[in-house]
Amino acid sequence: MFRSALLLLAATAAPALAQAPTGPTTPPITRPRATPLPVQVDPKLATLRDKALGDDVAWTITRDLTTEIGPRMTGGSARQAAARDWAVTRLKALGFRNVRIEPYTLPQVWERGSETAEVLGEHAQPLRLTALGNSGATPTAGLVAPVVWFASMNDLLLAPESSLRGKIAFVSNAMEPTQDGSSYGSSGVARFTGPNVAARKGAAAIVIRSIGTDHGRGPHAGNTNFDDGVTPIPAAALSVADAENLERLMQLGKPITLKLIVTPRFTGPRQSGNVVAEVPGTDRDAGIVLIGGHLDSWDLGTGAIDDASGLGITTAAAKLVMDAGRPRRTIRVVWFGDEEIGGFGGRAYAAAHAGERHAIATESDFGADRIWRFETNFTGAATAIGDRLAVGLAPLGIVRGTATAGGGTDVEPVLATGVAGLELNQSGLRYFDVHHTPEDTLDRIDPVQLRQNVAAWTTMLHVVANAPEEIPAVAPRP
Amino acid sequence: MFRSALLLLAATAAPALAQAPTGPTTPPITRPRATPLPVQVDPKLATLRDKALGDDVAWTITRDLTTEIGPRMTGGSARQAAARDWAVTRLKALGFRNVRIEPYTLPQVWERGSETAEVLGEHAQPLRLTALGNSGATPTAGLVAPVVWFASMNDLLLAPESSLRGKIAFVSNAMEPTQDGSSYGSSGVARFTGPNVAARKGAAAIVIRSIGTDHGRGPHAGNTNFDDGVTPIPAAALSVADAENLERLMQLGKPITLKLIVTPRFTGPRQSGNVVAEVPGTDRDAGIVLIGGHLDSWDLGTGAIDDASGLGITTAAAKLVMDAGRPRRTIRVVWFGDEEIGGFGGRAYAAAHAGERHAIATESDFGADRIWRFETNFTGAATAIGDRLAVGLAPLGIVRGTATAGGGTDVEPVLATGVAGLELNQSGLRYFDVHHTPEDTLDRIDPVQLRQNVAAWTTMLHVVANAPEEIPAVAPRP
Repeated sequence: MFRSALLLLAATAAPALAQAPTGPTTPPITRPRATPLPVQVDPKLATLRDKALGDDVAWTITRDLTTEIGPRMTGGSARQAAARDWAVTRLKALGFRNVRIEPYTLPQVWERGSETAEVLGEHAQPLRLTALGNSGATPTAGLVAPVVWFASMNDLLLAPESSLRGKIAFVSNAMEPTQDGSSYGSSGVARFTGPNVAARKGAAAIVIRSIGTDHGRGPHAGNTNFDDGVTPIPAAALSVADAENLERLMQLGKPITLKLIVTPRFTGPRQSGNVVAEVPGTDRDAGIVLIGGHLDSWDLGTGAIDDASGLGITTAAAKLVMDAGRPRRTIRVVWFGDEEIGGFGGRAYAAAHAGERHAIATESDFGADRIWRFETNFTGAATAIGDRLAVGLAPLGIVRGTATAGGGTDVEPVLATGVAGLELNQSGLRYFDVHHTPEDTLDRIDPVQLRQNVAAWTTMLHVVANAPEEIPAVAPRP
Repeated sequence: MFRSALLLLAATAAPALAQAPTGPTTPPITRPRATPLPVQVDPKLATLRDKALGDDVAWTITRDLTTEIGPRMTGGSARQAAARDWAVTRLKALGFRNVRIEPYTLPQVWERGSETAEVLGEHAQPLRLTALGNSGATPTAGLVAPVVWFASMNDLLLAPESSLRGKIAFVSNAMEPTQDGSSYGSSGVARFTGPNVAARKGAAAIVIRSIGTDHGRGPHAGNTNFDDGVTPIPAAALSVADAENLERLMQLGKPITLKLIVTPRFTGPRQSGNVVAEVPGTDRDAGIVLIGGHLDSWDLGTGAIDDASGLGITTAAAKLVMDAGRPRRTIRVVWFGDEEIGGFGGRAYAAAHAGERHAIATESDFGADRIWRFETNFTGAATAIGDRLAVGLAPLGIVRGTATAGGGTDVEPVLATGVAGLELNQSGLRYFDVHHTPEDTLDRIDPVQLRQNVAAWTTMLHVVANAPEEIPAVAPRP
């Protein structure tokens, strides 16, 4: 087998017989694979990586935050405020410097209300669902309307407007697991833009199959958005099991009527904040290494994989590097607020720190299963840093990707200014089983894989924060 | 969570509160996700796709070829010749037109000999290995030499030449499974170029840990290449279990001596060939849709996942489209010869058919686990074909990739001339457990996933072969 689309495989099919003792060969169409050049890495790196594989700081942060605080509802909730205080105490206790809360104001907040659904009539039965962030509300007594079924977003897009008026749209596309998480994009569009499309076509409400790869009863929460001028309609996600049940009911070919009660509301402005901690570096001019995750969570689970583990991983790695001696670059660990409801913490951070030089910005917000790939967008002299990362991360089973690193919600506003990025990609094969569900709890974290994450982040931080090369800015993102 | 590196996810973090009833919001840094445009697909497509999910032609081809012919050693072997005759009979029986063998000459062929290894001395024990294609030979009585261990290719590259002279190099990097197969590139370099590097540094021989993700006793065969002017040294792959055992022996810190017997040889020229079959189209000017897989295999297993299943999948899909009515474009199914030893069948095909217009070229050579992604490099009017493929493949759980389609060894010479490509990517998570090992047998094929493959290929062929748009050439590959 041979896949040339994977750049590193590009010469498996080298001319096998070019070295045969005699005779001409067909001119090679594919060229021989280039032998990589040797790369020198700091001998201390292996020691630090091995130490990280036995470190439990990430586990204790993840365990304690999900236990002592529990859900930290996105959108300036009281429990998120409690989590900020908890974070300050913990980060100080771990030995970080300049630990502080950086406050910002949320202009408006969407708040969950009641949420129930039932099939009426011959097949009367309850269905489990949860409202999507920014969903509109039904009357308190509920909304009763017939269901119109679309197997995919494309079918919804093709539907004539008249077919939706006064009805509850039901979009049921399924999602398969992908290691790179790409199926979240293609399946998730039913959540991201389905409610807006249904509202524009006059639907009274919309229910979707949860954007998830499980087969359980826990619905997957998450944000949606309506265009300016479009009045939000009630929008909710059925659990995968309930969505499949509703599909079977629709396949009976008889009219199905739902009663929906979904009563979220928009509150006034709220105060919220980011928590910041630092490992001061020796060279102020070398730029800050910005890392972190997000402190808020959806409310159904305890936000273990999303994103207590990301806080634990990045913080544990920063501590390991801190304990190994003062790095060249300052490492700044940010526990961002209000990621889930629109990336407010990341935007507030970027606005507050616009005058500072960042060398790189990267976050951990994809659970805690093993990291399988890294990518950078380093240019110039910094490409050598990428080469050292490849060698340093290889013993952890991590491949070098061929795409250009992007970022996540929280560091995106900093990356958008032209700061170099770097990604350590966790496997997404299990992530969407519990993402945004009641099942996002500590027991979903595999401590062995969590440690592999810490070792990868420690390797990355040691190499990047101590790199003698400059890390140039990249082209600002559009 | 949010990963903007995945293009389709690029606006999950849209400004959540932009629609809030009152108050200004922070200007959005990330833009709202674009709603996809509706796409019209042929209503017959769903029927054909469902029929494919119940079709058993791919299974019977895979079963019968691996049963009736068994291993079909790459490099013009007699069993490969027998497989060509078998193929002609089967393809005619299935109703294809213009079925024929297109012969070509292999100038030289590498042929396996004896292959054994044992640890001598205090820890005397046998080790299981297999010679790599293009390996040199030891004396018939064997080679006895001390082992020098390198945990990675980088360590081998860093080794001073003097450290290798007269020794057997042992490179032991491990490989983790990846859905996109990318770890084959980064781990596989130990096989692709390790022997050449060791030979240049004066090593007497090289053994590597098999390039595989299993933990078994079956060594993984595969090709390697030596630069012009470098005399091939004996080069072999230990099974993963045996490589780990040798690593533990090296960790004892005492000298370890191996006795290697590896006696392959280069034969003279041989005749070989491709098998070609067609579904004639109605429009000769629209270009040929070239598909297929490879008929040769490594000799240790029966070549079930590599690549009898690829022949089965592409042939079954072509038959389903043929049986549904004459397509616009001619579909040409090629069962290529001698892929494993250097892509000779693909090169011979490209040379023989250089004057013909191909619309696209694509192959199936990555096993038979479910297809999770497709990619194209269509340009101009043909981008609409990609949109229809996205809608047509989505019910099979297939995402649209954001990278540009490449190809495999067999179609690469045609793609190199500027013919458009398309990839239907099988999951690589299990593929390298048995790739090139004795375990590559029929029982590794999951009939349910095989049918999903056939449904995906049938969908692709129906859309592409019947597309009214022209499919323009793309920039020739470097």
